Amino acid sequence: MLNTMLQAATGMAQFGGAVGAGLAAIGAGIGIGLIGKGAVESIARQPEASGDIRANMILTAALIEGVALFAVIAGLLAVLSK
Amino acid sequence: MLNTMLQAATGMAQFGGAVGAGLAAIGAGIGIGLIGKGAVESIARQPEASGDIRANMILTAALIEGVALFAVIAGLLAVLSK
Amino acid sequence: MLNTMLQAATGMAQFGGAVGAGLAAIGAGIGIGLIGKGAVESIARQPEASGDIRANMILTAALIEGVALFAVIAGLLAVLSK
Amino acid sequence: MLNTMLQAATGMAQFGGAVGAGLAAIGAGIGIGLIGKGAVESIARQPEASGDIRANMILTAALIEGVALFAVIAGLLAVLSK
Amino acid sequence: MLNTMLQAATGMAQFGGAVGAGLAAIGAGIGIGLIGKGAVESIARQPEASGDIRANMILTAALIEGVALFAVIAGLLAVLSK
Repeated sequence: MLNTMLQAATGMAQFGGAVGAGLAAIGAGIGIGLIGKGAVESIARQPEASGDIRANMILTAALIEGVALFAVIAGLLAVLSK
Repeated sequence: MLNTMLQAATGMAQFGGAVGAGLAAIGAGIGIGLIGKGAVESIARQPEASGDIRANMILTAALIEGVALFAVIAGLLAVLSK
Repeated sequence: MLNTMLQAATGMAQFGGAVGAGLAAIGAGIGIGLIGKGAVESIARQPEASGDIRANMILTAALIEGVALFAVIAGLLAVLSK
Repeated sequence: MLNTMLQAATGMAQFGGAVGAGLAAIGAGIGIGLIGKGAVESIARQPEASGDIRANMILTAALIEGVALFAVIAGLLAVLSK
Repeated sequence: MLNTMLQAATGMAQFGGAVGAGLAAIGAGIGIGLIGKGAVESIARQPEASGDIRANMILTAALIEGVALFAVIAGLLAVLSK
């Protein structure tokens, strides 16, 4: 009985961890998607500003990537918790 | 009784793992979709900037792909958990 | 009693697996839909850039397809779980 | 019995922590995504205002990053709670 | 028995605290994102009004930041509650 309820708790944690990681991937997808779309369209409009656009694109995409990977790791910790 | 409640916990974890993997696929779909749409439209508008656009497209798409695959693997771990 | 609770747990896992696979299909549908829409419109505007547009279209669609198939397989594993 | 209900409580906390971290990543993704999209498009329209645009972009993105990282850490504390 | 039910209550509180902090980060992300996007686009259209735009941008972003940080701290207190 003891071990089984412990397992039930682990099931709940794994449930939340996987869903949380999925939500973080949605955030990263929408955010970096918007930036990438804007960047390629901007390069098409102003090809000579390409280096400046790429620098800003990488900077903001890296900020989103950092938070999203942090949240995915939080979800992974919940999945792998005993 | 013990084994069955253990199975119930596993069922909950598998439920969350599959839903989490699906959510991650939504994120990757929207994000890479926006980037791909912007890229092909930009190439149509400015065909001579094609190499630069493709480089930026692959860079941002790879960032999204990384987070999404990470989240899908978190979901897969929850599905395969005992 | 034991077998019935085991069946309930399997039902929960199958429920989540089917929903997760459906969510992944939504992601692939929206993403590849955006890319395909952009590609055919771009070819209509600039028919001579058709080969370049097709290459980029296939590349981004394949990235989405990879994540979505991975998530569908995670859902399938949850459905087939004992 | 005592330890197992304690574990059940931990499972609930881990569930919420992972989902909360995922929600925070959605917020950061949408917010920084909007800013980054606006910034690269603005640089394409007015390349000579690039330094001023970048300063404002970093300022607002840092504000969002601060709140989101704070919320992810709150989720991580819930995941790691005993 | 008393202590364990107390622990179950703590799990519930941590669940709500982490989710609440995540929701606050979504609010801050969307809000500051809209402001930042509008600001950089406005500077691109009217570069000589840059100082005035920046002052208003910081003022409104700080208002959102204040509320969001307050809510994240409320969530953090719920996570750290004994």
